[in-house]
Amino acid sequence: MERRQFIARAGTAGAAIASVAAPAIAQTGAPEIRWRIASSYPKSLTSIYGAMDMATKRIAELTAGRFNVSLHAAGELVPPLGVLDAVEGGTVEAGHSASYFYIGKDPAFGFHTALPFGLGLRAQNAWLYEGGGGALVDEFLAPYGVMVLPLGNTGAQMAGWYRKEIKNAADLKGLKMRIGGLGGLVLSKLGLVAQQLAAGDLYTALEKGTIDAAEFVGPLDDEKLGLHKVAKYYYFPGWWEGSASLALFINRKAWAALPAQYQAAMKVAAAEANQWLTAKYDTENPQALRRLVAGGAQLRSFPKEVTQAAFLAANELYAEMSGKSPGFRKIYAQWSKFRSEQVMWQQFCDLPFDNMMAGLLRTKT
Amino acid sequence: MERRQFIARAGTAGAAIASVAAPAIAQTGAPEIRWRIASSYPKSLTSIYGAMDMATKRIAELTAGRFNVSLHAAGELVPPLGVLDAVEGGTVEAGHSASYFYIGKDPAFGFHTALPFGLGLRAQNAWLYEGGGGALVDEFLAPYGVMVLPLGNTGAQMAGWYRKEIKNAADLKGLKMRIGGLGGLVLSKLGLVAQQLAAGDLYTALEKGTIDAAEFVGPLDDEKLGLHKVAKYYYFPGWWEGSASLALFINRKAWAALPAQYQAAMKVAAAEANQWLTAKYDTENPQALRRLVAGGAQLRSFPKEVTQAAFLAANELYAEMSGKSPGFRKIYAQWSKFRSEQVMWQQFCDLPFDNMMAGLLRTKT
Repeated sequence: MERRQFIARAGTAGAAIASVAAPAIAQTGAPEIRWRIASSYPKSLTSIYGAMDMATKRIAELTAGRFNVSLHAAGELVPPLGVLDAVEGGTVEAGHSASYFYIGKDPAFGFHTALPFGLGLRAQNAWLYEGGGGALVDEFLAPYGVMVLPLGNTGAQMAGWYRKEIKNAADLKGLKMRIGGLGGLVLSKLGLVAQQLAAGDLYTALEKGTIDAAEFVGPLDDEKLGLHKVAKYYYFPGWWEGSASLALFINRKAWAALPAQYQAAMKVAAAEANQWLTAKYDTENPQALRRLVAGGAQLRSFPKEVTQAAFLAANELYAEMSGKSPGFRKIYAQWSKFRSEQVMWQQFCDLPFDNMMAGLLRTKT
Repeated sequence: MERRQFIARAGTAGAAIASVAAPAIAQTGAPEIRWRIASSYPKSLTSIYGAMDMATKRIAELTAGRFNVSLHAAGELVPPLGVLDAVEGGTVEAGHSASYFYIGKDPAFGFHTALPFGLGLRAQNAWLYEGGGGALVDEFLAPYGVMVLPLGNTGAQMAGWYRKEIKNAADLKGLKMRIGGLGGLVLSKLGLVAQQLAAGDLYTALEKGTIDAAEFVGPLDDEKLGLHKVAKYYYFPGWWEGSASLALFINRKAWAALPAQYQAAMKVAAAEANQWLTAKYDTENPQALRRLVAGGAQLRSFPKEVTQAAFLAANELYAEMSGKSPGFRKIYAQWSKFRSEQVMWQQFCDLPFDNMMAGLLRTKT
């Protein structure tokens, strides 16, 4: 009522007043909108859950609280791995998850997060924001009625905790390891037995020997699980996750109903949180790693023989997936060219700088 | 008048209506504010200038145009290197520049951008956003009446163009090179003659032999200057800029006068642009590098002997600067510990992943 009266008066008062008043009308017209975001992660993961939490607060701040986005931890509204379905079905307007949790629906869900021997953090961000990846992924997601914004990247992950050392590819045969997604499929080709277990069950499973190895994220998050006490060999790099983008899945209809100003607030808050999460990990991981080593963790790198065998197995897997999934085939063709260019570029850019610094400082853990 | 009437009516109608109307009042009260940002960069640098341009547009979008920030290219309002003074003096509310342009005032201005043998991109972002660097830099800047937000990072830069190959440290003696800032000071200790020239003058200076070498940024920006035609040896890595953060300097009084909502809009837009610039460079640099190589550029890495000599010279320089500048001494103490931790962490994180990928793909330029 108030607004209608105001517009009527401005109209009577003539053009000069109307033009001054216009922005105020636009602001007054900003609707109050409430969204619920379901997370696949628990509050205890201050890193990943923290990034989404930061973004929801930023959105409120940017819209003077009129776009009110509430965040719900794993299981609060829907099961952790039911987030995509909930967004698709409109149970929630958005969800914070990892796209590769859903490769059971289509292997093309892998690209937004990580593929084994895929893109490092720099390349993944470049691909999603400027290299055509964002558009390809959204095109693939359109039939599901969802779109995605990157929200948080872990950087290269560690390769997990092992009760025994891995000295060659034969040591993987029969190894019972908690590893999901595409990494698990690659390792299965080398004879490993991939298992799915909740993070909270890993300690006991390793202690009892139900499993021989388990991977999670990196020092900061891994430390909370205490796995170094029951499986002391801590391997790197996590070649199945050279970086991992977390996903803010958004229901397309809900998105289309948002004013442009709120869409911008959500986009920019997601981008800020994406960068922040990496900064948080890089700031806190070194100290967490030192604490783990002081607590008995033994750092090991995968022997070249193992990574080379895994690389061949990954390429074989991608050929199979390209044959089965048109979505995978289309994205893989563009993605693998992009990857080659990035690997080439890194050899003249940050890689020689970082290697030089490692040589000059020779810092020990 | 309109607003006063509205508040009066809401007051009469009682608490229930007032609480619904409150956010609308807050929005209507959002003031129209105009700021001018002076850039140190020309519009032709679609990378660096483009990042600031993107941020100004995002700020307008987030505030429905009520916070109107206009961007002015180098020289339009103030000279390129007069940006910090203009922000300090209040000629403009903010400026997009690089902090290390101002090391003549105090060497501590170097930290926000880059120090030779300093932080790579991941570490620099971590330091500024989460590792205490942002607060230390702002504390140092307070007496100048300015604060800073990171806005754009180039990643590791190339080490520039040379008419002759650099085979050992002796080849640097007497070499006339266009290189500014701290990199120039380090190389001067090794006998190089550092020169200051505008980017537009480099081609002619190299062609005539007035200078023997020149550094700028990386493939995408360097290509525009055409230097590969007059100095074919293209060196890497740019060890004096393992990453370089660009700076949005803001006048503190102007900042304090902004509504919190506009401060948030500026912060988040700067963070988004910071990440975007790296993505743009990483997407476009590989192709620019291929074009340069096709055009005759010959890629060379600095011999270890040279970088080791330069590293010792840099440490010597930092000791001198710590003796002269309390600001430098304070930041350097924290920064150098942070650097050690980051170099350690990278050896278990992205560095082995990136090296593994380089080995597996063996892509050629």
